[in-house]
Amino acid sequence: MIRDLHMIGFDADDTLWRSEDYYRDAQSEFERIVGTYIDLDDAHDRLYAVEKRNLALFGYGAKGMTLSMIEAAVEITGSRISGHDVHRIVELGKAVLQHPVELLPGIAEAVDTIARDHQVVLITKGDLFHQEAKVRRSGLSDLFRRIEIVSEKDTATYARLLEEFELAPSQFAMIGNSLRSDIVPVLELGGCGVHMPYHVTWAHEAEAVPPSALDALDRLRSVRTPSELPAAVRALVAG
Amino acid sequence: MIRDLHMIGFDADDTLWRSEDYYRDAQSEFERIVGTYIDLDDAHDRLYAVEKRNLALFGYGAKGMTLSMIEAAVEITGSRISGHDVHRIVELGKAVLQHPVELLPGIAEAVDTIARDHQVVLITKGDLFHQEAKVRRSGLSDLFRRIEIVSEKDTATYARLLEEFELAPSQFAMIGNSLRSDIVPVLELGGCGVHMPYHVTWAHEAEAVPPSALDALDRLRSVRTPSELPAAVRALVAG
Repeated sequence: MIRDLHMIGFDADDTLWRSEDYYRDAQSEFERIVGTYIDLDDAHDRLYAVEKRNLALFGYGAKGMTLSMIEAAVEITGSRISGHDVHRIVELGKAVLQHPVELLPGIAEAVDTIARDHQVVLITKGDLFHQEAKVRRSGLSDLFRRIEIVSEKDTATYARLLEEFELAPSQFAMIGNSLRSDIVPVLELGGCGVHMPYHVTWAHEAEAVPPSALDALDRLRSVRTPSELPAAVRALVAG
Repeated sequence: MIRDLHMIGFDADDTLWRSEDYYRDAQSEFERIVGTYIDLDDAHDRLYAVEKRNLALFGYGAKGMTLSMIEAAVEITGSRISGHDVHRIVELGKAVLQHPVELLPGIAEAVDTIARDHQVVLITKGDLFHQEAKVRRSGLSDLFRRIEIVSEKDTATYARLLEEFELAPSQFAMIGNSLRSDIVPVLELGGCGVHMPYHVTWAHEAEAVPPSALDALDRLRSVRTPSELPAAVRALVAG
């Protein structure tokens, strides 16, 4: 069987460029700051609990994370956090927003190769303003036919995008590092996926994959590096 | 002359529903909080200066405003702001994100009437996650053919959207409360505008309008209330 893969979607953070590392660095620094007030080994978990509680209100992205860090710092220190340290936390968030866009080795060539045979689009979730800035700084925007920044990457979102693109799910494959956001919802719709794990994954993205997605293993490929992506897409086309 | 106005765009905040009032309330409360540390009458201006400085990094929206309020509170109080008051400022931001969506009187009927003769789309700038939540809560989303949430409303953005819609600027009119964001860029491209001022305008939106836009007064109408919008659109069609 030959699959007619008309369009290939690429995730952005930790698929095209490094991202989670910068969030991790900010969170480590946050732990050092609150660690000067109180001796605890679960600052990380308490921050994640605040982030998760706020997700329905803030959505994804560095600004929401920074507000959650500030809220968690007040909570963890029993309101003893100083104005100076609050300011340091704001600066941590700004550093994440300003981090350089460092492409993963070989990704530009992989996108370029895949774009010769397929339409390629970028589909990323998170903060509109920050994601647009990163796309601009990446130098990759001309390779993509469309750039879609969405608030959540679930089956409803992918279904809406495929309708806008006038494609059947079977004509679409998504490439990304998150099983939860990039792979499972597309497989569930009947599309294909190429999973390229990143060396670190945010706890939220690492949550369990529903067993229903495991029925679709013939529509899933897995690679370790960007240089393996074109062959994985060709393998999906070959069926 | 009859104008072929194929599509009418609506702004959202302060055009479909109340918004700026909630930001004003948060800022008044911010001034009360920092006012307990220091006696000054320019807290408002100092907050706006911080917001403006951060705009290129944060973009528009309540999360960025909240981070700017926290930064300004540290700055204005010489770092004396307490953890308790920092938390109150975070809560002010959350209140803005959760405010009820209160439609302007008559706007649902006006959109519905205009939608009988034209395609209507919603074009709003700001935080993707918050704007999507407000659109959902408004109950108006089914009236709009497309909902576009953008990071900036300038001529480049409107030109990109019109290209996606496959429309010439002369086939498009934009309805909104901000001359800077809703009216001037569309007039500059050759489109039409209906200005519906809101009773309060954020300083950033109230900045001067370039004189070039004044050449296009035959493509501009102005109304005081939503109930006047259908007639204003008909007047633009009549040319």
